Amino acid sequence: MDHLDHRVRGGWTPSGAADAALPAHASRWLSARTGLTPVDTPVAPDSGLPVPESGLPALVRTVLADIVGAAHVLVEREDRLGRAGGLSYVDLLARRGAGELPVPDAVVVPGDPDEVREVVSACASHGVGIVPFGGGTSVVGGVSALRGDKVAVVVLDLARLDKLVSVDPVSRLAVFQAGVVAPEAERMLAAHGLTLGHFPQSYERATLGGFAATRSSGQASAGYGRFEDMVEGVRLATPRGDWRLGVSPASAAGPDLRQLAIGSEGLFGVITEVTVRVRPAPAWERYEGFVVDGFAAGAEIVRALAQGGVLGTVTRLSDPQETEVALTLSGGWKSAAVRGYLRARGITEPSLLVIGWEGATKDELLTRRRATLRLVGEAVRLGVRAGERWRHGRFSGPRQRDALMDVGMCVETLETATYWSKLGDLREAVREALLRSLTTGGRRPIVACHISHSYETGASLYFTTLVPRDTDDPVGQWRRAKQAASEAIVGLGTITHHHAVGVDHAPYLASEIGPLGVDVLRAIKAELDPSGVLNPEKLV
Amino acid sequence: MDHLDHRVRGGWTPSGAADAALPAHASRWLSARTGLTPVDTPVAPDSGLPVPESGLPALVRTVLADIVGAAHVLVEREDRLGRAGGLSYVDLLARRGAGELPVPDAVVVPGDPDEVREVVSACASHGVGIVPFGGGTSVVGGVSALRGDKVAVVVLDLARLDKLVSVDPVSRLAVFQAGVVAPEAERMLAAHGLTLGHFPQSYERATLGGFAATRSSGQASAGYGRFEDMVEGVRLATPRGDWRLGVSPASAAGPDLRQLAIGSEGLFGVITEVTVRVRPAPAWERYEGFVVDGFAAGAEIVRALAQGGVLGTVTRLSDPQETEVALTLSGGWKSAAVRGYLRARGITEPSLLVIGWEGATKDELLTRRRATLRLVGEAVRLGVRAGERWRHGRFSGPRQRDALMDVGMCVETLETATYWSKLGDLREAVREALLRSLTTGGRRPIVACHISHSYETGASLYFTTLVPRDTDDPVGQWRRAKQAASEAIVGLGTITHHHAVGVDHAPYLASEIGPLGVDVLRAIKAELDPSGVLNPEKLV
Repeated sequence: MDHLDHRVRGGWTPSGAADAALPAHASRWLSARTGLTPVDTPVAPDSGLPVPESGLPALVRTVLADIVGAAHVLVEREDRLGRAGGLSYVDLLARRGAGELPVPDAVVVPGDPDEVREVVSACASHGVGIVPFGGGTSVVGGVSALRGDKVAVVVLDLARLDKLVSVDPVSRLAVFQAGVVAPEAERMLAAHGLTLGHFPQSYERATLGGFAATRSSGQASAGYGRFEDMVEGVRLATPRGDWRLGVSPASAAGPDLRQLAIGSEGLFGVITEVTVRVRPAPAWERYEGFVVDGFAAGAEIVRALAQGGVLGTVTRLSDPQETEVALTLSGGWKSAAVRGYLRARGITEPSLLVIGWEGATKDELLTRRRATLRLVGEAVRLGVRAGERWRHGRFSGPRQRDALMDVGMCVETLETATYWSKLGDLREAVREALLRSLTTGGRRPIVACHISHSYETGASLYFTTLVPRDTDDPVGQWRRAKQAASEAIVGLGTITHHHAVGVDHAPYLASEIGPLGVDVLRAIKAELDPSGVLNPEKLV
Repeated sequence: MDHLDHRVRGGWTPSGAADAALPAHASRWLSARTGLTPVDTPVAPDSGLPVPESGLPALVRTVLADIVGAAHVLVEREDRLGRAGGLSYVDLLARRGAGELPVPDAVVVPGDPDEVREVVSACASHGVGIVPFGGGTSVVGGVSALRGDKVAVVVLDLARLDKLVSVDPVSRLAVFQAGVVAPEAERMLAAHGLTLGHFPQSYERATLGGFAATRSSGQASAGYGRFEDMVEGVRLATPRGDWRLGVSPASAAGPDLRQLAIGSEGLFGVITEVTVRVRPAPAWERYEGFVVDGFAAGAEIVRALAQGGVLGTVTRLSDPQETEVALTLSGGWKSAAVRGYLRARGITEPSLLVIGWEGATKDELLTRRRATLRLVGEAVRLGVRAGERWRHGRFSGPRQRDALMDVGMCVETLETATYWSKLGDLREAVREALLRSLTTGGRRPIVACHISHSYETGASLYFTTLVPRDTDDPVGQWRRAKQAASEAIVGLGTITHHHAVGVDHAPYLASEIGPLGVDVLRAIKAELDPSGVLNPEKLV
């Protein structure tokens, strides 16, 4: 079954991909900069991982096979291992033999929304946990096959829900099944001259249902909005039956329940269809690079663009640390030469700003570009080449992480967002927390940060942390750092801007939405999923 | 207490206002067009209305007085009558002696969010219903003092929560107490060079808390968004304590619970503060009128503007029926002359299109205007005078309704929204339903419609119905028409785009959000308001 071929193995990189190795110059630089002693710690072969026998009761297996066909209830070792968890650093450590890897008792692969509903109903009747699974790209434990107090847990793989259901070009709407992978959605829309415009870093693997379940935000969010801004309707398979939401672009018919389904991370039901707003595919695109002196100055520019309504479709500011890493690891830029060039222009703390514009016509693009450039002010223009370099590598982060892990690095990201007046404080607080937690045993961490999603009232901060792995306690090393960062975030911003809650952020949810907020989510879950089978131990 | 002076009396028009009377030419035209026999049916004096004794238990009265002070627990006849219901046609009929007017047992006027919380808690303990009351402008029964199964019902008047709490000009945020009336909010923001930009027809009386509780949308929604797009945070007084939501512009920390509070119509808690996005007040404004041939052609233009991202801040298309009413009732346009002018330009079904632009500079405004005009195409330009005429009368609808009621008309509005591909069908279906229901006894109804809120994927439809009042059964006449219209809407669009659910739309909510949606709302209410005292018999 080729819908299985792209499943998680030991990392993001497809097995055998040639672009995976870290260049020697990068490894040397990391040693000098962080104290890394490069080692070779490849992904363990699947056969080396402990996988318990499937605990799925025989009766339930028969019931599920009656619904989806026996060929779509998978209990083989490698099928179950292929849907064990997502792609967080901790998940990937488990693939290298460090820490636990919860493996589901079976994988069920229904063929359409009705089969999903029947599977959900059957599992609810038999007290079997259900983990909805799209592209498996969660980095917060959202697809961990946790059993909770259930008799068994199955992964509900949405790979066969891969259809474009309908297109309404007049209203610019498209209905997709939830398991459609983002590049497939774009390919299907391109046949109609349309685009969704949702390009998160997980783009190559992630599904539309997953975007909705997690409140995803893509690199082009300034132009197209967050995923929740694109969702006009959702269809959920709940233990109590089908639930469809969304009949008009806007409504005052009570609270917006679509916004309850979006971000519900599979706890209230399995999203089986999403109706999304689409747009004509742009004929023109242009990316340019700029350099600003320091993060604060760059953030002021991005704020001016956001509040002036003239952000590029993509607008992304790296802080000096991220700029340094990008300059060095990419190896394409002649780092010293670039720095000399910038110093001559008075820039001592280079912060890279990448802006991308789109347009139906070249003229439209250039008009937008002019409006942006009026507010970019003193930034040094690096031109199209620097912009194109970013575009070329825009989805390569996860692959680079695999390569860094292979040589013994701890590398993980986390993200938050807050209002403009708190942004500098939030960045400092998180940086300090991570640096303090990870500076041990001669290791010198790098904490890099960028703004990639901007709003009139504030922006996101996305942190990448690089530090030599603590081989004695690799899981604990990162868990402590993540805890320190999360505690620094609480009170200053949101615990997650677009990675969702999953398992990793659950301890901090109450500090953000209040104990009453948690009680409300639990009450909704109890109403829709009274036996509590949907995605056990996630979110609340 | 001057916060009482602006309370509801018998209609929108402040007593003694000079602009209230319907001009003689309008009355003559209505007679010819609808079969009206003008009568004189003024608002009954308050003394003529039946008001039962207050049923508030003495103990509760003491408890409430301890919280807010005895002077702020009002049980006098006229105070209670002043907060009896809102401003729907049916509410106003009750003020003229037709139909029931539920009168609260008392009016409680707390001084700050903490007092609100204590009042809510006390009422929950004693099983006394609470109707949150801002400007009292609900047109769907949302502030009706319904007792439900409670021992008594009090109106919780937010008039004293009238403060601007804080302004963050960097993040463009302002925190307001919920009882601030919209013009006051604008006045307070103007001192900072800022604006909220929310101008619904209820602007002169409505409060920020009410906008949030009902998912309001203003005339400038194309420029500033709906009210829910402006809300960054809310604070609610629930029977289980204070609940604050909103820490960043966007988040993936589970479902967006702000969107649960917004539109909750007082069922989950009383909104005591709202944090809103604000913008620099525009220095330049310009309104122009256009005429298009027929509604369908006009809707195509508005769709092109919305999908092209070049809507004016205000963009409003009247159908030929509304254009006729506006031309005639306003009396300012020389109707026959205008029609001749338009006929000479090939326009047989004049549809008025009003577009307003804003800008920080004149140049910015003109740039926006040019972008719009490129897509306005064949429309006949009437220029600034027609636009300014609309602007001058933009809040006069409710006053005009009072005058029409005085001469014996039934006049009421309703609104919906749907996707572009269904918009024409929806308009036809609602028109037919209203015309069929109201064409009885020699009466010839006028059903007029406009688009005033447009989105990339669809638009709202706002209907105004004018028909001579059935003096034998005025309430039944409208109830039947409203039911016919609502049944026509179900399946084609939302039962309410910006008027909320209240009592009038409650029977149709399940058809829009599903029985599961209603169950979810009930579960949330049970969690936050276990004794069910908040706004009895509304929404669900």
